[in-house]
Amino acid sequence: MDEELGNGNLGPYADRPRTFPNMRSKVYTPLIFRILLGINVRVLLVLLFLGFGAVFYMGARTSPIIVFVFSVCIISFLFSIYLTKWVLSKDEGPPEMVQISDAIRDGAEGFFRTQYGTISKMAFLLALVILFIYLFRSTTPQQESSGIGRSTTAYITVAAFLLGAVCSGIAGYVGMWVSVRANVRVSSAARRSAREALQIAVRAGGFSALIVVGMAVIGIAILYSTFYVWLGVDGAPGSVKVTDLPLLLVGYGFGASFVALFAQLGGGIYTKAADVGADLVGKVEQGIPEDDPRNPAVIADLVGDNVGDCAARGADLFESIAAEIISAMILGGTMAQRCKIEDPSGFILFPLVVHSFDLVISSVGILSIRGTRDSGLKSPIEDPMSILQKGYSITIVLAVLTFGLSTRWLLYTERAPSAWFNFALCGLVGIITAYLFVWITKYYTDYKHEPVRTLALSSVTGHGTNIIAGVSLGLESTALPVLVISISIVSAFWLGRTSGLVDEAGNATGGLFGTAVATMGMLSTAAYVLTMDMFGPIADNAGGIVEMSQQPESVREITDLLDAVGNTTKATTKGFAIGSAALASFLLFSAYMDEVAAFSQEPFKQVDIAIPEVFVGGLLGSMLIFLFSAWACAAVGRTAQEVVKEVRRQFIERPGIMDYTEKPDYGRCVAIVASASLREMIKPGALAIVSPIAVGFLFRILGYYTGHPLLGAKVVAAMLMFATVSGILMALFLNTAGGAWDNAKKYIETGALGGKGSDCHKAAITGDTVGDPFKDTAGPSLHVLIKMLATITLVMAPIFL
Amino acid sequence: MDEELGNGNLGPYADRPRTFPNMRSKVYTPLIFRILLGINVRVLLVLLFLGFGAVFYMGARTSPIIVFVFSVCIISFLFSIYLTKWVLSKDEGPPEMVQISDAIRDGAEGFFRTQYGTISKMAFLLALVILFIYLFRSTTPQQESSGIGRSTTAYITVAAFLLGAVCSGIAGYVGMWVSVRANVRVSSAARRSAREALQIAVRAGGFSALIVVGMAVIGIAILYSTFYVWLGVDGAPGSVKVTDLPLLLVGYGFGASFVALFAQLGGGIYTKAADVGADLVGKVEQGIPEDDPRNPAVIADLVGDNVGDCAARGADLFESIAAEIISAMILGGTMAQRCKIEDPSGFILFPLVVHSFDLVISSVGILSIRGTRDSGLKSPIEDPMSILQKGYSITIVLAVLTFGLSTRWLLYTERAPSAWFNFALCGLVGIITAYLFVWITKYYTDYKHEPVRTLALSSVTGHGTNIIAGVSLGLESTALPVLVISISIVSAFWLGRTSGLVDEAGNATGGLFGTAVATMGMLSTAAYVLTMDMFGPIADNAGGIVEMSQQPESVREITDLLDAVGNTTKATTKGFAIGSAALASFLLFSAYMDEVAAFSQEPFKQVDIAIPEVFVGGLLGSMLIFLFSAWACAAVGRTAQEVVKEVRRQFIERPGIMDYTEKPDYGRCVAIVASASLREMIKPGALAIVSPIAVGFLFRILGYYTGHPLLGAKVVAAMLMFATVSGILMALFLNTAGGAWDNAKKYIETGALGGKGSDCHKAAITGDTVGDPFKDTAGPSLHVLIKMLATITLVMAPIFL
Repeated sequence: MDEELGNGNLGPYADRPRTFPNMRSKVYTPLIFRILLGINVRVLLVLLFLGFGAVFYMGARTSPIIVFVFSVCIISFLFSIYLTKWVLSKDEGPPEMVQISDAIRDGAEGFFRTQYGTISKMAFLLALVILFIYLFRSTTPQQESSGIGRSTTAYITVAAFLLGAVCSGIAGYVGMWVSVRANVRVSSAARRSAREALQIAVRAGGFSALIVVGMAVIGIAILYSTFYVWLGVDGAPGSVKVTDLPLLLVGYGFGASFVALFAQLGGGIYTKAADVGADLVGKVEQGIPEDDPRNPAVIADLVGDNVGDCAARGADLFESIAAEIISAMILGGTMAQRCKIEDPSGFILFPLVVHSFDLVISSVGILSIRGTRDSGLKSPIEDPMSILQKGYSITIVLAVLTFGLSTRWLLYTERAPSAWFNFALCGLVGIITAYLFVWITKYYTDYKHEPVRTLALSSVTGHGTNIIAGVSLGLESTALPVLVISISIVSAFWLGRTSGLVDEAGNATGGLFGTAVATMGMLSTAAYVLTMDMFGPIADNAGGIVEMSQQPESVREITDLLDAVGNTTKATTKGFAIGSAALASFLLFSAYMDEVAAFSQEPFKQVDIAIPEVFVGGLLGSMLIFLFSAWACAAVGRTAQEVVKEVRRQFIERPGIMDYTEKPDYGRCVAIVASASLREMIKPGALAIVSPIAVGFLFRILGYYTGHPLLGAKVVAAMLMFATVSGILMALFLNTAGGAWDNAKKYIETGALGGKGSDCHKAAITGDTVGDPFKDTAGPSLHVLIKMLATITLVMAPIFL
Repeated sequence: MDEELGNGNLGPYADRPRTFPNMRSKVYTPLIFRILLGINVRVLLVLLFLGFGAVFYMGARTSPIIVFVFSVCIISFLFSIYLTKWVLSKDEGPPEMVQISDAIRDGAEGFFRTQYGTISKMAFLLALVILFIYLFRSTTPQQESSGIGRSTTAYITVAAFLLGAVCSGIAGYVGMWVSVRANVRVSSAARRSAREALQIAVRAGGFSALIVVGMAVIGIAILYSTFYVWLGVDGAPGSVKVTDLPLLLVGYGFGASFVALFAQLGGGIYTKAADVGADLVGKVEQGIPEDDPRNPAVIADLVGDNVGDCAARGADLFESIAAEIISAMILGGTMAQRCKIEDPSGFILFPLVVHSFDLVISSVGILSIRGTRDSGLKSPIEDPMSILQKGYSITIVLAVLTFGLSTRWLLYTERAPSAWFNFALCGLVGIITAYLFVWITKYYTDYKHEPVRTLALSSVTGHGTNIIAGVSLGLESTALPVLVISISIVSAFWLGRTSGLVDEAGNATGGLFGTAVATMGMLSTAAYVLTMDMFGPIADNAGGIVEMSQQPESVREITDLLDAVGNTTKATTKGFAIGSAALASFLLFSAYMDEVAAFSQEPFKQVDIAIPEVFVGGLLGSMLIFLFSAWACAAVGRTAQEVVKEVRRQFIERPGIMDYTEKPDYGRCVAIVASASLREMIKPGALAIVSPIAVGFLFRILGYYTGHPLLGAKVVAAMLMFATVSGILMALFLNTAGGAWDNAKKYIETGALGGKGSDCHKAAITGDTVGDPFKDTAGPSLHVLIKMLATITLVMAPIFL
């Protein structure tokens, strides 16, 4: 694809003065989407029946809860197909818009294919490594008695890993697929009504959000019931226990986080290298506006929004939900087993039900945002943020209700009749945590509040003070989220402990599960949050298309407004993802400890950082975060410099670009960014995967020679915990600083402190440029990294023993 | 003082075209220094005899090792007086130099007095708090049997705290005192010979280094022998054991780190706010060179070098050495007791001996740098860095020898005849670690190497890419030091464990003491390293005086060269301080665990981060580092903005400044910076002190209500360890990024990539500005903070139980 664009396949250059049409010609829709969209209603109904048939067969063999989960997922898939059809039925606007949109789509799909080609090769390699390790690992006595031998575990883990990777890839693709189609429709609708544009963007975002969440849920449910039926769970005495099943799903989570990490890294480098490169020459040196068609890097920038924000965020949220469901299932199973609960399946399947309800209530939230006929261009534009917030409020209220319902349904047990209520409160803690995270992020990144105003003011005294103030703001913004997450961990743990669930020895055991329930509460509106997040890049792209196709000022105003809202929702989703990553990682950590104890047949209850080697593991874990962030930012910087040089070269060699008489070579910039970001994503990604394995293996050998059993496992545990803590803080710092810089610039662009073109504005642009790799490359990669570390240690545990 | 300067007490403005003379008139030397310098040789001899008399009395009562330590310290004090006399005997140059120097001295001493007034008030308040806590704390059964009751412990701790605070204050004052006198002499000597200027700066630095190290050693030695004699150690069965003494010294370390923290914060904010403010208007807006007499903030900037770099670094290194000696003494005592070593005093007093040798070998290193007659202005200038490096090499070789000697002398025991050799190897590990730290810092901050060159290159594409590249460089530079420190912790621990020292049950116990010995090895050349460090700001100031007094180009070249070397030595000392802080903090941490176990009469061997509350403690610890850094950087940014506004105002209101016809109001800038930095140092400082106490107390109460004993102590332990790890990484990041930005700018100023005045240079100046608060305010405050946290948890332990 890159070559096609590079070779000028953008079509002959038309000599029109105000735009650059005919950027590409062919339309490409993958087969599966063409089939899905082409299905007529009767075929759909047949498929529906077949689906339900399969579901009922599996459900009858496993649990009615699974039937419920399957049904909800299938219904929500149907609903999401309805949403797409609705979005695609909207008009694509005038040909100049379509041409720009086509160029973006080509760039995005081309990059996606190359990127996922590389990722799938790496995933395949890693699958072989996992297979090899598992074929030579030891098994627990329990496993041997139940007949799950080495090879069974090996194949199950590898299969789960590959399925997770594939699903994560699909999740990413879906996010991008709809976004490259919705952007032009939003631009077109913006010519008519702000409200309609908002509705299209929200429904397009909703489509991919429902697919992403639904796929995470149904994937795990299918795996679970397949294992259940295949392994003959609880069929005979000594067979596999239902409480052991969740641990077999870890490979799925690892596969998902593996793909998400590279998707986020590659996409993040792509989007920000193009953005920084375009801004540095276009805005700062040439003084042309953002997304101006004269900028040779503008198409690359718009492509970046799709591959970086849509595809990567889809994979990211998919992985967040998968990791969180699996960790909660493991903890639920462990606890149910310890407390000898009569039917543990309620505790195990609880997360799946929560996310099924999530699909339902988020759909309601999405539908609540309606296009109203009367709000034409002339009527005052309603604040899109408040419309989205209203939908969010509806979703949250419903979440509280359905969460309470789910706990009463699934977590009620005769052994502790009031436990379900405590867990419902845990869920409430999670929901409140999510709400506070969103609020704190908004406080630190929205220019309506003090921090961003102070940051903008510091731009008056120059580039230097702007950067210092932004860095301080980012560092400071870590404090409140950490306090919130601390309080929610401690209080959810306490609520769980006092739930009345006790093990055989009478010890309270529900604490950790309480924390797990709080995490689920936090993610109980995930689909709606993801919708708001996906809305951002679609609006951003629509703005770009409007700008490039030289629409009138009034249309631009609408897309600018939507774009600004998108910036805030993007920032809040990141805060949300970090919070849930912190909790999920803490849960996976305790699953890891159980796993190590089971396989080593030694108690592994403590990670004592007073042991020098363990402390060193912690040091290395934190260092990993710093080094990873360094490499991610440096990758953007390096690639951006290549873009800057290319754009400068084009402006010098084609002086006609500035007065629209000569056409910039968009394809070259796309090609440069694509190849550079594929190259640059490998180093930080490999670091993240190799270092825990290397450290664990090294200290295992050291422990062997110094007579210290389990040293490798302990060091890796410390590494994971310190990496989690440092990663959370670093991610909060990077995301918030980046968001604040961006909005400080936007605040100045509203006319404050000298407005556009002033020295103050230039300083603010520098801050925005610095913030780009912070908030869209390193920052969002970090919380994926944290969870990937948690899953990799769990899957690779045999190496450390 | 501020008022005097502000009211124009700088003297009448002479109408000379090229300089601004008569900045002040009176000369102020504190009484104690006047007396010391006025003593004639006979009186000195009498004092010497009296000193030796006292030493021999105490030594006879305690240990011959103490006699040795006292003697070396007294001799090195005499030697340092010789160095001062030598420096002060040099000429002060022409009157314009003297006037500038006098203005700097006034500003520095005025700020120092106000700052230490504030600090002493806070110290006094904290002393009352400590007294109150200790009067109500519980005592160990062992303490009660030996007669050290509550009130004795309380008074001892408070007295030690106050003594530590006073000594730290003196250490800071001495550093500044000599620097404000040496700067003008170095400027004057630079007119004659580069070598002579270098020698004066080194000897002046050496004076304060010897005083700082000597005072840390003699202070602890005096406290130790006083307690020994007063408490009647080992006099009767059941009396205080010699191995319990070191724990009584912890107050001294806390006092030292308390003062050092505020000194570093206040001084750091002062120096960088002035620097950033001066550069932003002077260099960037008006295009006048650094240290130009037309810049109204130039005197404030030069004052800042003295209060920030000299005074603060003196207090900082004093505290480093004190903390490290005390922690090693505690560990030595604990180990000697566990292994039932016949005479434990060798193990306890070992650190004092190591630093006594440090004084001797560093003096040799200082003396090895000589002024040679033949190198006049005309002869090619020798590279000052290589001269300093030669001295460092001599010192290191001597350190290896004397360290081996000390281990054989003091750590030889019949119970494990080869243990001393293992510990000598531990020392070697420490020395190699120090050397590698210096090398790594040089690699990342010197423009002879790849990283800074890449950073300079990234300035070509603008401010934004420069900042991104600098941040990445800083984050990346944390990796190698962490690897080095990890290897040295593990290998020193292993060497200690295999030393053959075993406790009653036959377990190897020397591991932790091995790490302590490695820390001592690392600090075994502390006095020489501090000399190199002090050399930096003196050379920097000399350069400023040369620039302001409009000396010929050849003189400026010499001071510029010395200044550049000073930048590198300053950066390396910081790396060195961080490495030793990491090790010292780890040691104090284990002392804290012993202390808690002793007082709670429960075993406290593990800090298990799998417990949610403990994990939360870790989160809060890391967050503390981020928030502290944020506030430190923000303080500089805010104060710098005030300076920028004032300087801009002066340039507008007094247009004659630019053509030397009107005089800038230096005093107003000095006054603004001084009052702002006093105000701004309180918030981060208070955060550092209050948060561990608050967290520990809160979780103690929580633990009480949830039936979790020692919860407060455990949470604080996790907080400390996570803060240490995050603090090390953050400090490495901030220091290296700052140093690299500074030198990237210097590299461009040598003419590379467009040279001075180019767009590339402007981008590099932005980086330098951002780096200023990183490397001179937040960065160096962080390693002080880490050790203060370690000592505060140790001293405040009773609150958490």
